[in-house]
Amino acid sequence: MSHYQAPLADMSFQLFDVWQVQQFWQQQTELAELVDADTAAAILEEAAKITAEKIAPLAAAADEQGVSCVSGEVTTPSHYRECYQLLCEGGWTGLSGDPEYGGMGMPKSLSGLYDEMMCSADIAFSLYPGLTAGACVALLQHADEATKALYLPKLYSGEWSGTMCLTESHAGSDLGIMRTKAEPAGDGSYRISGEKIFITAGEHDLTDNIIHLVLAKLPDAPAGSRGISLFLVPKFKVDAKGHLGERNNLICSSVEHKMGIHGSATCVMNFDGAEGYLIGELHKGLACMFTMMNYERLAMGSQGLGAAERAYQNALAYANDRLQGRTTTKDGNKADPIIGHPDVKRMLLNISSINEAGRAFSVYVGHLLDQAKFAQDTKAQARANLLTPVTKAFMTDRGLDACVTAQQVFGGHGYIREWGMEQLVRDVRIAQIYEGTNGIQAADFMLRKVASDQGTVLFDLIREFSADLAGSASTQIKAATERFESATQSLLERGKTQPELLAWVANDYLDLTGYLLYAFMWDKMEAALDTAKHSEDFIHSKQLKAKFYYNRVLPRIESLFSLIEQFPEDLSAEAKLF
Amino acid sequence: MSHYQAPLADMSFQLFDVWQVQQFWQQQTELAELVDADTAAAILEEAAKITAEKIAPLAAAADEQGVSCVSGEVTTPSHYRECYQLLCEGGWTGLSGDPEYGGMGMPKSLSGLYDEMMCSADIAFSLYPGLTAGACVALLQHADEATKALYLPKLYSGEWSGTMCLTESHAGSDLGIMRTKAEPAGDGSYRISGEKIFITAGEHDLTDNIIHLVLAKLPDAPAGSRGISLFLVPKFKVDAKGHLGERNNLICSSVEHKMGIHGSATCVMNFDGAEGYLIGELHKGLACMFTMMNYERLAMGSQGLGAAERAYQNALAYANDRLQGRTTTKDGNKADPIIGHPDVKRMLLNISSINEAGRAFSVYVGHLLDQAKFAQDTKAQARANLLTPVTKAFMTDRGLDACVTAQQVFGGHGYIREWGMEQLVRDVRIAQIYEGTNGIQAADFMLRKVASDQGTVLFDLIREFSADLAGSASTQIKAATERFESATQSLLERGKTQPELLAWVANDYLDLTGYLLYAFMWDKMEAALDTAKHSEDFIHSKQLKAKFYYNRVLPRIESLFSLIEQFPEDLSAEAKLF
Repeated sequence: MSHYQAPLADMSFQLFDVWQVQQFWQQQTELAELVDADTAAAILEEAAKITAEKIAPLAAAADEQGVSCVSGEVTTPSHYRECYQLLCEGGWTGLSGDPEYGGMGMPKSLSGLYDEMMCSADIAFSLYPGLTAGACVALLQHADEATKALYLPKLYSGEWSGTMCLTESHAGSDLGIMRTKAEPAGDGSYRISGEKIFITAGEHDLTDNIIHLVLAKLPDAPAGSRGISLFLVPKFKVDAKGHLGERNNLICSSVEHKMGIHGSATCVMNFDGAEGYLIGELHKGLACMFTMMNYERLAMGSQGLGAAERAYQNALAYANDRLQGRTTTKDGNKADPIIGHPDVKRMLLNISSINEAGRAFSVYVGHLLDQAKFAQDTKAQARANLLTPVTKAFMTDRGLDACVTAQQVFGGHGYIREWGMEQLVRDVRIAQIYEGTNGIQAADFMLRKVASDQGTVLFDLIREFSADLAGSASTQIKAATERFESATQSLLERGKTQPELLAWVANDYLDLTGYLLYAFMWDKMEAALDTAKHSEDFIHSKQLKAKFYYNRVLPRIESLFSLIEQFPEDLSAEAKLF
Repeated sequence: MSHYQAPLADMSFQLFDVWQVQQFWQQQTELAELVDADTAAAILEEAAKITAEKIAPLAAAADEQGVSCVSGEVTTPSHYRECYQLLCEGGWTGLSGDPEYGGMGMPKSLSGLYDEMMCSADIAFSLYPGLTAGACVALLQHADEATKALYLPKLYSGEWSGTMCLTESHAGSDLGIMRTKAEPAGDGSYRISGEKIFITAGEHDLTDNIIHLVLAKLPDAPAGSRGISLFLVPKFKVDAKGHLGERNNLICSSVEHKMGIHGSATCVMNFDGAEGYLIGELHKGLACMFTMMNYERLAMGSQGLGAAERAYQNALAYANDRLQGRTTTKDGNKADPIIGHPDVKRMLLNISSINEAGRAFSVYVGHLLDQAKFAQDTKAQARANLLTPVTKAFMTDRGLDACVTAQQVFGGHGYIREWGMEQLVRDVRIAQIYEGTNGIQAADFMLRKVASDQGTVLFDLIREFSADLAGSASTQIKAATERFESATQSLLERGKTQPELLAWVANDYLDLTGYLLYAFMWDKMEAALDTAKHSEDFIHSKQLKAKFYYNRVLPRIESLFSLIEQFPEDLSAEAKLF
C-alpha cells in the first residue's frame, strides 16, 4: 500500500519564501485578522496530520469497495462517513468560505495546498467537499442574499453538500445542445426535468442534504449556449429556517463503473419536475456555472500535483529499498538500491523537478486569485483567467506522466494492485478529462485567452518574469522567452489568415507555455533559497532539481517550438481520416 | 464495448508492397514450399475472422471475470477454453513452429501480424499461446533431440502450454541474485526448489499439461548470473511416449491482482523438490532463456501496437459518431461530429501515423529474423539483435501514448468501463514493464547494442536507409540522420571518459532512434504506393499520415537531440535525492 506525508517543508517554502504571501495577507484588513504565517503553518500541519493518518491509508480500501447504488440510495466506502465528519468538525469544509456565512475565509494560496494534500490522500474522497466548495463559490457570487443566507452556512459546515449538473449523454463539452427543461411553476420557482450524467457526488450517504446546481433551458430559451439558465435544486426541499422538508422529484438512477476514483459516486441523475430556484439571470446560467467551473479547474491542477506527489514519495522510498543490480558492491550475489542507477534517478528527478515547479505555480495562481478577490486587483484577475486552462491541463498532463513514471520505478510491482501505484495512475487519469477535457482547455487558452487580446496579458506576465530572472539559467530562460514571444506573435499573425491553425497547435502551445512558466518557477525558487533559513540538504535538493529542470526537462520546448513555428500551410483540416 | 477488425489492407501493404517479403520466401527452399503471398493472405484473413468474431468481443468479459486461484487450481475467464480450442484446431498455436515437430513453419514477418491481431483482440488471452511459442523457441534451440521430440509436438499442437519462470520476489531485473535451487538427483534429473513470482500462465485450465522453463542455481554454482542454469519442469511428469504421469511437486499458491490483463493468470509458483531436466549447458541458463526473452520482447512490440490499433479504430469511429460543437452547421441547437475539430484530428493522426510506422517496423524486424533464420544472414541477425530493445520499448511506450490519447478522444466516456477504452490503457501498461522494463531495454540498447561496437551495426543500418530515401521528406530525414550519427559519435566518445553518461541518456537515445527509424518507415511506405495497385483513398490516407508524421511527430527529435547533445558534465550520479 502506498503511503503519504504532506511535503510541509516545500509548502512553507513556496508560500512564505518564494511568494511571500504573508506580506500581502498583512496588508489586507479582511485577511490580516484571520491569518498570518503562524496560523497558516498550523493549518497546514493539522491538514497534514489528517490526510496522512486518516484519509491516505484508506484510499486503497476505498478503491476496492467503490460505491454502489440500490434504489436510488448510494453507499460510499465504509470509512468515508467518519473521514467526512472529521472534516466538518475541523471546519475544513468551509476553509476558504466567506466568514459572513460561516466560512473560515482562508486565502486560496493556502487552501490550494490543502486541496493538494486531499488529492494526494484520496482524489475520490476529495471530490465530495471539493464540489461543495465550488458550488459555494458560484452561489456566493450569483445567488441573492436570502439564498446565500439559507444555503451557504450549511454547505460551509459540511452538513449539506453541493454538485454541478451540466453534462447530458449527448451534451458534454458542448452544453449548448442540452435538453434539460425548466418550466416556470408560477410561484417564482421552476420545475426541472431531464437527465444529467457524470454527476460527481450526485447522491451519497455523507450529508443530510445535497444541493444541485443544474443547468437547464426554458421552453422559449434562445438556441445554443445563450439559452442556458442555472437553478438550485435541493435533494430535500428546505423551509425558510433551513429545516428539511419533503423529498424533491429527483433521483440517482445509477452510478458509473469507472477506470478509477472508485470511491467517488459518478451519478446519472433524473430530474422529474423537481423544484428548482433560478440563480443569477435567466439565460445567463453558463456564465454563472463557469464561476464554479473555473474554481474546479484550478482544483484539477491540485489533483494532478497531488497524485504526482504521492507517486513520487512512494517511488523514492521504493528506489531506496529495492535491491537490484550492482552500483557499488562487487559481490555478484548481492545488490544495491536501484536509486543508484542513473535511469532511476532520471525518472525520480523528472517527477520531482516538475512537481515542485507545479507547486510553486499552483501557489502563484492561488495568490493571483487572492489578489483579485481581496485587493480587487484586475491585473491579477486577468492573469488568473489566463492561467486557469494551463493549470488545469498542464498540471494534470504532467500528473499522469508522473504517476506512470513512478509506477515504472516499481517494475513489475508497479502493476500489482497492493502496491498502490496503479491506483494513482487510474485515479489521476480522470483529471485530464473532466471539467473540460485538456483539449478544450488548450483551445480556451489559445483562442479565448491568448488570441483574443493578441497576447497582451500573457506577454505582460512573461516580460515581468523575464525581467526578474536571477537564477542559474537566466540566459537560457531569457532566450526561450524571447523565442516564445516571437513565435507567439507570428502564430497569431498567421492565425488571422489561417484561422484553424490556432486550433491545430493549441495543445502544443499550451504545453510550451507550461514548460516555460515552470522554468520561471524554478528561477523564483532558486532566488528564494537562503542559507540562513534553509538547511544544506534542502538547498542542495532544490539546486539539483533546478539544474535538472533546466537541463533535462526544459529542452522539451525545442520540439514544441518546432511544432508551432513550422506548421505546414497545407495540412488540411478537411483531410479525410481512415 | 470496443470493437476490432484487423487492418488487413495495411498488413498486406506492409508485407507485400513495402518489404516484399514474398520474394525472399520464394528464394528459400524451406519457405517456398510452405508459404506464398496467397497463402499468407488467406492466413491473415482467417486470423482476422477469429480475432474479430471470437476473441475481441469477449475481451471486456475476460477483464470483468478475471482469474481465480483456489487450492492451486486456476480458473480463467469462461470463454477462454473455447477460444483456446479454436486456436489449437486451426493450428495457430504452432504457427511459427518448426515443421519437423509439427509446427506450421510460418515466417516471423507473417506471424508477427498474427501476434498483433491477437493482442488487439485480447492481450491477456494472447499470453497463453504466446508464452508457449516463446518456450518452444528456447527448447528448439537448446534442448536435446529427445526432449524436443517429446515436448515440441504437444506444445505446437496446443495440448500443453509453456511458461518462463525467472523472477523471484527479490530478483527481477537482477536475476543473478536468485535463490531457487537445483540439486542433482543422481539419475540425471534435478530437484528444483524455490518460489517464482509473476509467472504468466503458471497455472490455468486451458491445457492438460504445463511445461515450465525454470531458472535455478546449483548449490556449487558460480556467483551472480554466471551460475544460472535452465530446467524444464513439467506440471505433470511425462513418460517416454508422452503420456502424462504423476503430478510434479509444484503448485500455484496465488495469483496477482493487477491493474489490467485480468484474464491472464500471473502466478506465484512454488517448486518443492520438483523434478526438472537440464536444458542446454550447466550455468549457461541465462543465455538459453534469453532466446525466449528476445522472442518475447519482439512480441511485446506487438502488444503495444495491437492495443494502439484497437484504440485507434474505436477513437476514429467515436469521433465520426459523436456530435459536439459546430464546425459546419450554424444551428446553435445542432452539432457536428467531433472529427471536424482540428485537435481531434491531431490526436487521431498522432496515433495512426505512429501505428502504421510501427507496423512497418514490426514487419521489418520480423523479416530480419526470417533472413537470419532461413538464410543464415548474420547481418540481418545483428540488426535484429540491435533493434530488439527498440521494438520492445519504443513500440510499447508509443502504445500507451496511443491508448491514452484515444481514450481522451472519448472525453468522459473514455473513463467509463463499458466503452472499453480504459481497459486498453490498463492492459497495454504492462507491456512497458514486463520482459525487462523499458529502462532495462534502453540500457541494453545504449550500452550492449550501440556502445559495445561503437555504433557499427546501427550506423550501417541507418546509412543504408538514408541512401535509399525517396519520399517527400528525404532532405529533412537525411539531415536528421547526419545529426543523429554525429550526436551518437560524440556521445560514445564522451562515454569513454564519463561512463555513467550513457546510462543517463539511454532512455532519450532509444526514443530518438525510434522516431528516426519510424521516419524511414514512412519513407519506405511512400515509396511503395502504387496507383495501379492501391485505391485513391488508401494512397491519400498514407500520404496524409506520412506528411503528419514528418511535420508533427518527427519534430520530437529536436528535444531529444538537445538532451543528448547537451548533457551537463556535473549532473552528478552521486546526487542525493529527496
